[in-house]
Amino acid sequence: MKSLLTMDQLSTEEILAILHEADEFSKGKTWQPENQTFVANMFFEPSTRTKCSFEVAERKLGFQVIPFDAGSSSVLKGESLYDTVKTLEAVGVSAVVIRHEKERYFDELKTIHIPIINGGDGCGHHPTQSLLDLLTIKQEFGRLDQLHVAIIGDIRHSRVARSNADALTRLGAKVSFSGPVDWFDESIIKQGTYLSIDEAIEQADVVMLLRIQHERHKMISSLTKEEYHQTFGLTLEREKRMKKHSIILHPAPVNRDVEIASELVKCNRSRIFKQMENGVFIRMSVLKRAIQQQNEGEKIYETHYKKRIAN
Amino acid sequence: MKSLLTMDQLSTEEILAILHEADEFSKGKTWQPENQTFVANMFFEPSTRTKCSFEVAERKLGFQVIPFDAGSSSVLKGESLYDTVKTLEAVGVSAVVIRHEKERYFDELKTIHIPIINGGDGCGHHPTQSLLDLLTIKQEFGRLDQLHVAIIGDIRHSRVARSNADALTRLGAKVSFSGPVDWFDESIIKQGTYLSIDEAIEQADVVMLLRIQHERHKMISSLTKEEYHQTFGLTLEREKRMKKHSIILHPAPVNRDVEIASELVKCNRSRIFKQMENGVFIRMSVLKRAIQQQNEGEKIYETHYKKRIAN
Amino acid sequence: MKSLLTMDQLSTEEILAILHEADEFSKGKTWQPENQTFVANMFFEPSTRTKCSFEVAERKLGFQVIPFDAGSSSVLKGESLYDTVKTLEAVGVSAVVIRHEKERYFDELKTIHIPIINGGDGCGHHPTQSLLDLLTIKQEFGRLDQLHVAIIGDIRHSRVARSNADALTRLGAKVSFSGPVDWFDESIIKQGTYLSIDEAIEQADVVMLLRIQHERHKMISSLTKEEYHQTFGLTLEREKRMKKHSIILHPAPVNRDVEIASELVKCNRSRIFKQMENGVFIRMSVLKRAIQQQNEGEKIYETHYKKRIAN
Repeated sequence: MKSLLTMDQLSTEEILAILHEADEFSKGKTWQPENQTFVANMFFEPSTRTKCSFEVAERKLGFQVIPFDAGSSSVLKGESLYDTVKTLEAVGVSAVVIRHEKERYFDELKTIHIPIINGGDGCGHHPTQSLLDLLTIKQEFGRLDQLHVAIIGDIRHSRVARSNADALTRLGAKVSFSGPVDWFDESIIKQGTYLSIDEAIEQADVVMLLRIQHERHKMISSLTKEEYHQTFGLTLEREKRMKKHSIILHPAPVNRDVEIASELVKCNRSRIFKQMENGVFIRMSVLKRAIQQQNEGEKIYETHYKKRIAN
Repeated sequence: MKSLLTMDQLSTEEILAILHEADEFSKGKTWQPENQTFVANMFFEPSTRTKCSFEVAERKLGFQVIPFDAGSSSVLKGESLYDTVKTLEAVGVSAVVIRHEKERYFDELKTIHIPIINGGDGCGHHPTQSLLDLLTIKQEFGRLDQLHVAIIGDIRHSRVARSNADALTRLGAKVSFSGPVDWFDESIIKQGTYLSIDEAIEQADVVMLLRIQHERHKMISSLTKEEYHQTFGLTLEREKRMKKHSIILHPAPVNRDVEIASELVKCNRSRIFKQMENGVFIRMSVLKRAIQQQNEGEKIYETHYKKRIAN
Repeated sequence: MKSLLTMDQLSTEEILAILHEADEFSKGKTWQPENQTFVANMFFEPSTRTKCSFEVAERKLGFQVIPFDAGSSSVLKGESLYDTVKTLEAVGVSAVVIRHEKERYFDELKTIHIPIINGGDGCGHHPTQSLLDLLTIKQEFGRLDQLHVAIIGDIRHSRVARSNADALTRLGAKVSFSGPVDWFDESIIKQGTYLSIDEAIEQADVVMLLRIQHERHKMISSLTKEEYHQTFGLTLEREKRMKKHSIILHPAPVNRDVEIASELVKCNRSRIFKQMENGVFIRMSVLKRAIQQQNEGEKIYETHYKKRIAN
């Protein structure tokens, strides 16, 4: 069983294998399991792109997607997440994708027997987002090592800053950070180097902007949106000082004219929509990994099934 | 790319072609695209029949329908409609159906590269409803010209009154209007002739009742429901004075005993459920038109794709 | 047309036929209708397991499931349940599953022409839950007659206590009841025998616990949860006094440490997750029965169709 909960559970070899397979999917490779396969997407927080991206990936793999609406589920009757997932397992679902506002919600799901794909846990992790960022960079430059990636913005509340920084460093890239200092975390800063916004933008091969999580904290420090944009955002003026081949990433949804000038969202350097395209291929790769393992493990599984389902 | 946003963008030839194909679908014709095709239904307002009708049409055409729930989408995080649709385009959706409370919401979507099917915009347009009305009339009488169609009720807030009147006139029918005068619009009235409710019902071949939009305006003028029914509704008594072969249309949901006596909803003259049946065939026709064009344009599309997705 | 609304509409022969076919499905039997078949699940109350179970069953039978979200349907515009179901019928849906808070909601749907599967009506009935309970008992003991089944807990608000008691009695089992006396119903008590909780647990072959419906009545009599557990619940201590081969059933979601000690939910005697598995097979059996009949009746149906859809 191959769940995917956090980036740090993956070895660099595993990361590269997932990226490789996703790249093949992007070039038209197809794969489908032999038997009818059910999955469910349990999104307890709003999402368009992650949820739709998983849905498209799942259907490209020929899966049957069982609708799960958190707002009309038995969670309203007080059922625990564990019992809800266990229910889906019992009715025949082979894997679940979960987004949940609680950090490390998956710690209470350790005895679940089907793979869990983490679609985002609070301010914690979002591994498929990290992987699609890596794929987009690798497709652009043909490599991940010896690149300078500047991660800019709301580091503290970001689900991807930490795991991206860690994975990029492991894969040989140089990582630096920029943004309002009160959004910084000791543990993050020691992984890279803090740069002023202008240094970051002029030196980086990859300008990775983070989304300001209005839904997680009401105030952008003490700055107005306009002040934030001028002080820490990618303005039209700053974009002109980027290196010739450097690119812009943003996990979206974009706060236009806050993190980035609205006109730059679709500029030549922007890979924001490319990231969304790649999200589908990454999720196909991650889901195939989960389900294929599952099927290969099925003989053993069936032997123990009756006992396990009862336990 | 063949979006369908308003009736007036369609020539009479195009209208007749859509009706013809829908009629063929009603007789058992099938069509499916060669490749796996994803669509999304983005309904920002309540709907049962339009949404379910599109869903059935899409699956009859073999499409994969990606669930989109406005209430749990990133629109809640403040994402614009443009960015949301652009996201769906990026993850591989080939067409979107949109219902939105904002009139002409589609004006901000002009640079989207996938077809948009308007499932209703505020008090503006609802072209597939207009088309299914036309199909139902044409199936009944074998023609649209030289028929007298009386459109009765809440003209001002109706998404179909205007476009139906225009299309019917272009196709050779005579259109008249009836209902409370304060719900009338200068622009409408000059297209046809105002008749008293009794004149309208006695003269029309098609009595097209409109729904009172309780959700759009709380008061039915200054009348109670019962007073409205007696003054402007299709009562049991009025139905008896209709011409022998004339029929009743209503877009539903019906306010029973307001626009129409409850007993008449399923009477011999009523084509209300026939309209719902025809809705599926019209939507199949409109979606085929959108997707087929899309595929035929695909070579050109692929050439420009990388550039366009970035722009 | 074979709706399934209540257990008492089924003869014992019909019950046994449904169980037999479900058991075959559990052993790998497959069946799919010849033509593309649309169904809709109309859940007006929260549900995870029943809804997901129907979804999986429907897809195993190759049905196309049309999404229906009560919260964004025209019911919000005041449309009646009858008109909503009639709409689904008109757009081509072949069967509907309905869960509704109103007891006997189906009485107003008598003139609907497609089968209705009751997924729970208020405190009334929940026939597929009853059938899956019966299947789980039959699989365990190879028979239903001459077994002692103790039904324990919130009898008054239970959708299954009444119909299970009745069906078990008809099938030759002995039924007894236990729990707080103020939750008992004269009509129930006369069907069986009231036992103290300790008698019930020591004598029964099947300990069938009911869920305390927190969402239906706020107070558990005058007891705290802990007091309820000690007085009427299946404690760790009581489980030890159960007969050697006796089993535990619970419709779930479980209130852990109220009806049953948390540690017992997955114990060797528990068939709680087995019940969920069986739910899928029972629903396949019930849906096949509904749709197969439907297709066999289709010739007659088509002849009368135009007339009927208008009526």
